[in-house]
This record gives sequence, structure tokens and C-alpha cells, in this order.
Amino acid sequence: MPPTQDSEDDTLKILVATDIHLGYAEKDGIRGNDSLVSFEEILENAKKHDVDFILLGGDLFHENKPPRRIMHGCISLFRKYCMGDKPVQFEYLSDQSKDFNHCQFPYLNYEDPNLNVSIPVFSIHGNHDDPTGQGNLCTLDILHTSGFVNYFGKHTSLEKIEMSPLLLQKGSTKLAMYGLGSIRDERLHRMFLKKTVSMLRPRENQEEWFNMFVIHQNRSKHTTTNYIPEQFLDDFLDLVIWGHEHECRIEPEWNSVQNFYVSQPGSSVATSLSEGETVKKHIGLLQIKGKNFKMTKIPLETVRPFYMEDVVLSDTSLDPQDHNIAKKVEAFCAEKVEGLLEKAESEHSGNSKQPDKPLIRLRIDYSGGFEPFSAHRFGQKFIDKVANPKDMVQFQRKKVLATKSDS
Amino acid sequence: MPPTQDSEDDTLKILVATDIHLGYAEKDGIRGNDSLVSFEEILENAKKHDVDFILLGGDLFHENKPPRRIMHGCISLFRKYCMGDKPVQFEYLSDQSKDFNHCQFPYLNYEDPNLNVSIPVFSIHGNHDDPTGQGNLCTLDILHTSGFVNYFGKHTSLEKIEMSPLLLQKGSTKLAMYGLGSIRDERLHRMFLKKTVSMLRPRENQEEWFNMFVIHQNRSKHTTTNYIPEQFLDDFLDLVIWGHEHECRIEPEWNSVQNFYVSQPGSSVATSLSEGETVKKHIGLLQIKGKNFKMTKIPLETVRPFYMEDVVLSDTSLDPQDHNIAKKVEAFCAEKVEGLLEKAESEHSGNSKQPDKPLIRLRIDYSGGFEPFSAHRFGQKFIDKVANPKDMVQFQRKKVLATKSDS
Ligand SMILES: [Mn+2]
Ligand SMILES: [Mn+2]
Ligand SMILES: [Mn+2]
Ligand SMILES: [Mn+2]
Repeated sequence: MPPTQDSEDDTLKILVATDIHLGYAEKDGIRGNDSLVSFEEILENAKKHDVDFILLGGDLFHENKPPRRIMHGCISLFRKYCMGDKPVQFEYLSDQSKDFNHCQFPYLNYEDPNLNVSIPVFSIHGNHDDPTGQGNLCTLDILHTSGFVNYFGKHTSLEKIEMSPLLLQKGSTKLAMYGLGSIRDERLHRMFLKKTVSMLRPRENQEEWFNMFVIHQNRSKHTTTNYIPEQFLDDFLDLVIWGHEHECRIEPEWNSVQNFYVSQPGSSVATSLSEGETVKKHIGLLQIKGKNFKMTKIPLETVRPFYMEDVVLSDTSLDPQDHNIAKKVEAFCAEKVEGLLEKAESEHSGNSKQPDKPLIRLRIDYSGGFEPFSAHRFGQKFIDKVANPKDMVQFQRKKVLATKSDS
Repeated sequence: MPPTQDSEDDTLKILVATDIHLGYAEKDGIRGNDSLVSFEEILENAKKHDVDFILLGGDLFHENKPPRRIMHGCISLFRKYCMGDKPVQFEYLSDQSKDFNHCQFPYLNYEDPNLNVSIPVFSIHGNHDDPTGQGNLCTLDILHTSGFVNYFGKHTSLEKIEMSPLLLQKGSTKLAMYGLGSIRDERLHRMFLKKTVSMLRPRENQEEWFNMFVIHQNRSKHTTTNYIPEQFLDDFLDLVIWGHEHECRIEPEWNSVQNFYVSQPGSSVATSLSEGETVKKHIGLLQIKGKNFKMTKIPLETVRPFYMEDVVLSDTSLDPQDHNIAKKVEAFCAEKVEGLLEKAESEHSGNSKQPDKPLIRLRIDYSGGFEPFSAHRFGQKFIDKVANPKDMVQFQRKKVLATKSDS
């Protein structure tokens, strides 16, 4: 898709991001603003690339009840970047009052004559910011009612989910966008098996529509039922945007059984020191023209660097019988950290908002007669250089697969 | 001031309310929505009377961190009633960037070209919704940043308070509006004594300005220092709007020492079963023309009725020696309640949103050999008729003055 003027008129440009986790480590003196900083970078990119809209795949907030400072920061950024004179360039063909009938103001924010929206934001909820409590509201309800977000994909029935797509058109391109806010995996899995989950399709010219689905569930298999296999999804889909999984696998992956692509943008802040979070973080510039699409990866420059290294002490020249072995092991590990710090420095994005202090995690396999050392004392050596001096090292006995954390 | 067209052009019309306490008794199955219902009535009145702006005197929220449902309800009402095409009819003469320099968006919401505001809301904070925590933010900051409220009167220095008025003009009428968000009474009292509180005045034509001050502090004397005596305030003021005190004394009271009026609107929901809260609740339609003003009381029709009665058992014909006295006392009190319920029914405002079940409080003086009865059992009799069956009766030994509750 060369960006000629002609094709621009027919190309929907969408900024895609998920799992922004605003407020992660909010009280941490070092990392407390990381999530907001990267969120601002995401919105800057939306503006810079002049997208038609922003699509968020859930977990915009880390906590179900975000602290006031985080809520304030979020609203402030939406007002700064998403309000303005730029006219919205696509048409909305489906029935707003039905698509948003779960909302207090059941229509699109940019259709409100009292709000001047330059970049509409569409979002589903994740498991971290899902509806709860009296009124079954979530933070996205507040953002929708405030006029900053168009909150879709809220399905409340426990028996049956019938998804109507939002229907958008730009020039000759027609997008049917399905959304499903996070549901407990086991329950959704069961509903799929019972065939109580369905996707409605536009009645006419079905083959003309580009069908996209935004979902926020476990993609990788944990137990047999607490994930959603890709083959559960309808095969008329063209592209699935998969939220919840924090590893960036935004490059669309072809599922040849289902005949659709899956793009997993991943998080924009590391919420655990797990392997998936070490993968370089990106958001996507999704361009859809007719039945074709292109996902351009945009590296995030402000994300705090995170390096992880596995150390197997028995594979080194260190001798567990050495009378000075404790000190030598610690020195060896400190050297590893120094190496990672150098790497962090050399790989700095150059963006002045990218923090200097990286996250560092050494996974140390000490089987074969070695002893763990004090993680606290070790961290003290790097207190001015590392963002997480308290949990830099993790000791394990045998090489085990990293367990997945809560995304 | 007859409302001819001519005088309308010169008359600032302001809807005045304080202590709305959104979210009071939020979890109460019966009373949970009272505060939101009356807030809606207040906004309806603002619209109906076509006011230039709404002035709120603090404690818009009952809790420092309002529950999501309450926040959502509040924003929803602001969006419904205060956004729209009606142009703002007054001029703003002072420097917005200074008046709102404590805010993320240091300007008036209706001056933002991206927001279509029909009724600007100006508010100070109260002690229930004051700034706290990281960033020293309060809920009004979120509402200001969202574009729904113009939050003024936030003074953060502990040493010195220098109040600049917001300067507004409509036709020939010039209003200097001073605001001071709630501060601990003892501290503010001390600052007044130290002469570190001052009010700046417009340099030119000082005598032309109508000077109004919005304050949220104890007005009645508790101890010697935890209230603000009216004589502490500058005597160039014309009108003081006094928030925090929940008793409606909205009719302006002349302070002949200070030569100014004080109007105390009171709360729009009873947050305690105290005497002050039984006074019929009003908001005010304040009209200012030149140096004159008129405060028209508007009765609130949706407020849950609240009746309180004192019963002194020894003043009745009841005989403490009667072998059946316990039953007789209870029957006597039940009759009192029935009387109040009849009164409530006959005094119903007729507004369909006014709740039927009133708040009832009997203060029973049982000195003289009587015994208290079970408040629980007593309440059970009225469980379908009264909003507060659990705390209808309060026993006391001697007539004592009602103690004041937290406003
Ligand atoms: Mn998630
Ligand atoms: Mn997540
Ligand atoms: Mn108060
Ligand atoms: Mn109050």
C-alpha cells in the first residue's frame, strides 16, 4: 500500500495498543510514572501518524480502582491529544444507540456537538479494569461518560454473547470491528464450547467487509480450559487483535487453520520481571484498505529497559568447593549485571523521556552444590543504577520454565 | 430588580449551592441515590432559571475518594445539564492562567474551543473533598481537567494566603469573586490572627465592584479557635457565601459590624440526624446588579423529608410506676412517629422524585425513672415506612443541646 493521496482516502489508519496498565507501580518512587510516560508516547504517535482512531485492547488501567493521580493523568492526556479540530474522516454505519446501549451516553464521543474530538479512542476493558460493583461500572464507563473514550464490547449476559460489530467505512474500505471485553477464561471457554458465543455479520455484501476482532483473554494454554484457543474464533475474521498477553508479538501471525491473522501488541510497561516482558515493546500502525491490511511496528522509545539473564552456576568455571566461593559467585553475578547495564546504556533509545535505570533480573540456577546469596545485599550495590534493586536476583534449583504472571 | 430586558443585560444570575455531598449513604439501599437526585434538581434549576453560572461552596462529594458509581453519576449530570450551545453572557477580566494556575488546564472550561459549555460551574473544595496525597489533588481537579468544573480557591501555602478575585463583568455589573477552599479551622484561624490572609483588590474603580467571598469553614463557634469569626473577614466585602454549615440559612443575614451580608445555603442532603438538617433545604438564585443583589430562595423538592421531635417522658402523663410502663412508653413514642409520618405525607412536595419514606428521629429524655426500650424492635415496626428504621430513637438522660456533627 503506497501512501498516495488516492489510497489514503480509502485507507483506515488505526493506532493499536493494549495493556497500557496506567498506574502500575504507582507508588514506586522510581517507576511511578512509567506507565503514564509511555501512554503519552502512544498518544503522540497517534497524533503524529494522523490516524483515524485509536484502538485499545484492554487493561488501560492496572487497577480496577485507579488512584486519583492516575485517573487525573489519564484524562489530562486524552484531553491534550485527542481533542481538537481535526475532522473524523470515516463514516459510522451501524447503530450507535445499540452499539453503546450499555453506556449512559449511548453514542460516539465525536458525534456529540458539545465535544470537539480529533482522535476518537475505542476501547474494550481488560481483566484489570473490568466492570464491578454496584451498577457494574468500570473506569472506561467514566471515560466514556466524560467523552474521552468510546467504550465497546461490554457483554453482561452470562448465558449468551452475541457480538454486533461496529461498522466503519472510509472511502471504499469497510471495517466490521468486533470487541469482547475480558471475561473469566474458564467461563468464556465453556461458553464457546456450548456455542453460546456468536458474531453477527452485516447482512449485505458480507465479503466486502474487513473483519477485525479485539479480545482480551489468555492466548497461551495454561490449563485445558483457562485460555481461548484460536480455533474457537470464527474463521470469517481477517485479523484478531489479542490483548492481555504482555509479550509483544505484534507482527501478525498467520493461523492457517482459521485463515486469519493474529496480532498481539503486548504491554507498554513491564508489570512483571518475566521473559515475555523483556521483548522490545511496540505499538502498531494498522492500515486497512479493502480486504488488505498492513501492520507497521512502532517501537516505543520511552519504555524502561528491561534485561534478563539466566546464569547456571554449574555451567561456569566456578568451583563449589572453593573456600571463597560465596564471594566469587556474587562477584560473578555482579559482573553479569555490569554487562547488562552497559548494554542498557548502549541501547538507550535517545528519547529523553526514556528512564536511565533499567530493570534487571538474573535468574540464577544454583544447583550443583552452590548456595544462594543475600538478594538484599546484592541489590544495595546497584541502588543508584537499577530501577529494581530489591528483586534483581531470583534463585532456582533446576532450570524451570518461567511461570507466567498475571497480565 | 424587575426583570426587564434592560436590567437583565446588567444582571449576573448565579445559582448558589453548597454541601451537596454526592455519595452520602451511598451503600444504603434506601438512601443511596438521594444526593444524586437532589444534585440533578439543582442542575435542572440552573437550566430553568437560565443562570450565567453555578457557584458551589464545597463538599460536592461526601468522600475524599468517591465511589466509581458516584463519580460516574456526577459527570453524567454535568454533561447532561452544563454542556450545550447557550453562549456565556459575561466577560472574564482577570488572568485565567493565574486564577487557575494550580490546575493542569489553567483556563476556564468554556474558553476551551473543544468544549461547548452552556453553564459554567465554579467551585471551591470543602473538607470532605479536599486535596490530598501524591500531587495534592482532589476530585475537583479531575472534574476541572475533564472540563466540567472551574476549580478555584485552592491555596497551598501554609504560610500565607493571598486571594486574587476572579473578575467577571456583565453589562455594567462587575463582580469580584474570592474563593477559599476548606482549610483546617484552627490553622486558618491562626493565619487570620497572624494577618497572613489577604484579599487583593482590583486596582481601578474599586468602589464599582461587587465583592463576594465563598468560604467553607466552621461559622459557629465550637472552641475558641476552630471556627472563623465573621469579623476576621475584610469589610469591603458585600456578600459572603458560607459553605460547610448544613443548616439552611440562605436568607442573607446582615452583619452590621462588618457591613456585609452572609448567606449560608446549607446542604442538599441530610448527612446527620441533627437539628440543623431538619430545616427546609434551599438553594439560591443570586442576582447581582451593580452593587445590589437579591437572593431568591428556591426550595428543593426532592430532598428526603426529615422530622425530628423531642419527647420528655417526665413531662407526659406517663407514670414510671405503672406496671405496664415499658409498653406504654413504646406505644406513646410509636404514636409520635405516626404523627410525623402523617405530617410527612401531607407535606410531600408533590415532586415525583421526592422519596416517600422520611427520616425520623425522636430524641427521648427518659430521666425520672423511665427505661430506654429496644431501638431495634421499635424500628422494626416502621421498616416499610421510614428511611432510617435503625436509628430512629435516641435516648438521653437530661435535655442536652444537640451536638454538631461533621459537616
Ligand atoms: Mn489482562
Ligand atoms: Mn495486561
Ligand atoms: Mn464541610
Ligand atoms: Mn458539608
